[in-house]
Amino acid sequence: MSIKEGQLVYLYGGERASYLILYAPGRRFSTHLGEVILPPKVSFGDPLTTNTGRKFYLLKPTTSDLAMKVRRTTTIIYPKDAGYMLLEAGIGSGSRVLEVGSGSGALTIILAMAVGEDGKVYSFERRKEFMENAMENVKRAGLEERVEFFNMDPASEGFPVENLDAAFVDVPEPWTLARPVHEALMGGGRWISLSPTIEQVQMTFDALEEGFVRLKCVEILEREILVRRGKTRPRERMVSHTGYVVTASKVNAK
Amino acid sequence: MSIKEGQLVYLYGGERASYLILYAPGRRFSTHLGEVILPPKVSFGDPLTTNTGRKFYLLKPTTSDLAMKVRRTTTIIYPKDAGYMLLEAGIGSGSRVLEVGSGSGALTIILAMAVGEDGKVYSFERRKEFMENAMENVKRAGLEERVEFFNMDPASEGFPVENLDAAFVDVPEPWTLARPVHEALMGGGRWISLSPTIEQVQMTFDALEEGFVRLKCVEILEREILVRRGKTRPRERMVSHTGYVVTASKVNAK
Amino acid sequence: MSIKEGQLVYLYGGERASYLILYAPGRRFSTHLGEVILPPKVSFGDPLTTNTGRKFYLLKPTTSDLAMKVRRTTTIIYPKDAGYMLLEAGIGSGSRVLEVGSGSGALTIILAMAVGEDGKVYSFERRKEFMENAMENVKRAGLEERVEFFNMDPASEGFPVENLDAAFVDVPEPWTLARPVHEALMGGGRWISLSPTIEQVQMTFDALEEGFVRLKCVEILEREILVRRGKTRPRERMVSHTGYVVTASKVNAK
Amino acid sequence: MSIKEGQLVYLYGGERASYLILYAPGRRFSTHLGEVILPPKVSFGDPLTTNTGRKFYLLKPTTSDLAMKVRRTTTIIYPKDAGYMLLEAGIGSGSRVLEVGSGSGALTIILAMAVGEDGKVYSFERRKEFMENAMENVKRAGLEERVEFFNMDPASEGFPVENLDAAFVDVPEPWTLARPVHEALMGGGRWISLSPTIEQVQMTFDALEEGFVRLKCVEILEREILVRRGKTRPRERMVSHTGYVVTASKVNAK
Repeated sequence: MSIKEGQLVYLYGGERASYLILYAPGRRFSTHLGEVILPPKVSFGDPLTTNTGRKFYLLKPTTSDLAMKVRRTTTIIYPKDAGYMLLEAGIGSGSRVLEVGSGSGALTIILAMAVGEDGKVYSFERRKEFMENAMENVKRAGLEERVEFFNMDPASEGFPVENLDAAFVDVPEPWTLARPVHEALMGGGRWISLSPTIEQVQMTFDALEEGFVRLKCVEILEREILVRRGKTRPRERMVSHTGYVVTASKVNAK
Repeated sequence: MSIKEGQLVYLYGGERASYLILYAPGRRFSTHLGEVILPPKVSFGDPLTTNTGRKFYLLKPTTSDLAMKVRRTTTIIYPKDAGYMLLEAGIGSGSRVLEVGSGSGALTIILAMAVGEDGKVYSFERRKEFMENAMENVKRAGLEERVEFFNMDPASEGFPVENLDAAFVDVPEPWTLARPVHEALMGGGRWISLSPTIEQVQMTFDALEEGFVRLKCVEILEREILVRRGKTRPRERMVSHTGYVVTASKVNAK
Repeated sequence: MSIKEGQLVYLYGGERASYLILYAPGRRFSTHLGEVILPPKVSFGDPLTTNTGRKFYLLKPTTSDLAMKVRRTTTIIYPKDAGYMLLEAGIGSGSRVLEVGSGSGALTIILAMAVGEDGKVYSFERRKEFMENAMENVKRAGLEERVEFFNMDPASEGFPVENLDAAFVDVPEPWTLARPVHEALMGGGRWISLSPTIEQVQMTFDALEEGFVRLKCVEILEREILVRRGKTRPRERMVSHTGYVVTASKVNAK
Repeated sequence: MSIKEGQLVYLYGGERASYLILYAPGRRFSTHLGEVILPPKVSFGDPLTTNTGRKFYLLKPTTSDLAMKVRRTTTIIYPKDAGYMLLEAGIGSGSRVLEVGSGSGALTIILAMAVGEDGKVYSFERRKEFMENAMENVKRAGLEERVEFFNMDPASEGFPVENLDAAFVDVPEPWTLARPVHEALMGGGRWISLSPTIEQVQMTFDALEEGFVRLKCVEILEREILVRRGKTRPRERMVSHTGYVVTASKVNAK
């Protein structure tokens, strides 16, 4: 199974020398460990050698790679949070989901992977330059067919979509979206928001008290263990806070 | 969008009174907060009242619900871990994945949700009674078309499948599977294992040194925040350890 | 060095069979692993055998033991928090410290250990029955000479002591004590409070903004590692939240 | 209570502008926020103003300050760990303790604070240049009367002291000291070691199995909460691993 032109590959030469690049036969790529030339016929898992004799591998990008290696105009969502959020949303192939705050498109890519070819991500972003960067990142990942972008402010205008399975909210004032998101979701649909401060969480809980049940807030921490013969220990520094995840389920008035 | 007979619903009456049940019109269901009768025509998000006047809601199950509410014959994988593992595997709709150790089928369900109708989960379990329970749990979740179960020991026999995108290994001795998994994976395919002890991780790293690169070990922690007006604080007790996740990418010999 | 009558010993027969008891020659003590008789002449570190053949040891109690094994009328402070608090207070032998909220006397004991024979702990408790229990616990630990108890409400009356090195505040509304504690402390003296909720911390910070600098809030987590040959891993459940520690330094108006 | 010449003061101008300095009347001290002149008569808690108009305060150093601001020739122990270790050692004013591995003297200072004027710290360091730096740091903190330094390797020679209350072991191979420490401790005396890797912990446990009971391993984590009106959240990065603390109690053979 050869890699095709235009396909994304994860060029891996160690944790500090890894790149998400588009494959083209004969393409030259420079790293601080030397230059590689992508061969005309090559498969995932194949080794390459730089002109300075260092070994690289052409790996299949993970979803985390696709998300973490976007061109960033904003802080991006971390896989540790996104993975939890996906499972709490209950979405899968064919799901139709809302994203408010496209940001750099990292979560957009993760959602597009999850909903598959039959699903759809409706992604809203107020700032045009952010949206355009997010679109570019999604396109690079080859997922543009699964995402529809909107350059608008849904807090005032509401969403032009409805009956959605889940809504992912990553904006500074999520509580302003409780009403419009409620209208856009199907009954039982899931609210998933991520906020860095505890006050944002408190205001979000207040806003969700009407029309939503099963409110929950968690924090996800990721700790790397360095496994080295005779010297195994946790990494000495870590990202200790990204944000709090708030989840809830829409209920119908009756 | 009415709920159809045989569809799973999450009957929610608070965190300590929630049940994953199969919908049937007129079905009676008893809880410690009273009995509910499922109405003939009902939608996700609708409220119900028990004979003792307590309110319940018919919610759409999340993927976490499907996994956490299986009938357990083994310890099961937690959503905090499974979410991270999914994103590290880079799988999506259409992926073909290996699962070694079906266990109670909790991860099987999560994987089946992720690969969609066009994908396939090949799930191996040595103990017949575990496999049968896992099959039952997968069937109840309506995902049996996406999963093929095998009652065999792949450490000695190898896997009758190949060219897979990722392998999820949850057995006591993952290192014994490094060779057979390597053969079953496509180039660049991902190894994802979960083990409770640090010695298992060390032996797994040793075994993966040949044929795999990009070895990484992380631990994922989930901490709930109780958001209550004027009394917000982390929950006082938590599950502080489930297991260490080990990830790696298969490379081709050359 | 024989153990003297009336001295506290930590009778240790495993993590689930350990007792803080007063030594008396010939004393019989019943445990779920059988009965021991304390010999007439015995030293710390000596083994004993129960009538059912189980081994116990007479250990020297740690400060943590003295604190954790008090008779409890309230939730008590944990050593992980108390240790950090001590070092942040900068106290040592000869220090004079304030404690507001004697509680069960666990922190009182820790402070009395720290200030030594030349120091003094002034401990305030509004509820008489709590104070009496705390006094009893301090006396049992043989530290009553180092502690002076007051059954009063300092929020309204102020403290009848001054020029103290540090103040330890463990009451539900620490912010009400910012003024009276400021008056009782020496210049540069330390405020150390512990509160379970984030709102208490926020109100405490607000109250300390006047008259204090160097405000800091931390949370201390303790995680046990079970070290067993071939099966080393963190304990599966832990106390994930006791409280937030707030520290500050008194400054002089000028 | 004026500050005396030669006394340590914590010159505080914010978290990124704080210095542990020796007081001398008229001393000039330059910071990146300007220069201060220490007035001839001044008390802890007093404010100062730099020549550029920035405010500083003369605070009483905490024990943490004394430890964290030593001149470092080695990695130093953190207060979060040292506080826990102190309480587990059960030491107080008058205790006689062993320290193996003086390092930069940070823990030496903490121990000297704890044992008071009537206690003694016997501190062993193999490398002469480390010992001399540690001595300098202890002297600067005014605690040299309480500490006796030894430039020797106790693993081969044993300790020239005995009947000690506790031993603090911070060397790369703590297990080599199990025998000599056992001889130096009183019955029931406490072993406290700190090691960064899990393999060190495992070897230490093995070595302590003879002659010690009540073996325990914990990890202490410190997480700072940034309390800012409307924007309260944990700090985004933290020190996630310093070391594992191992504690045990010496028992007598019989």
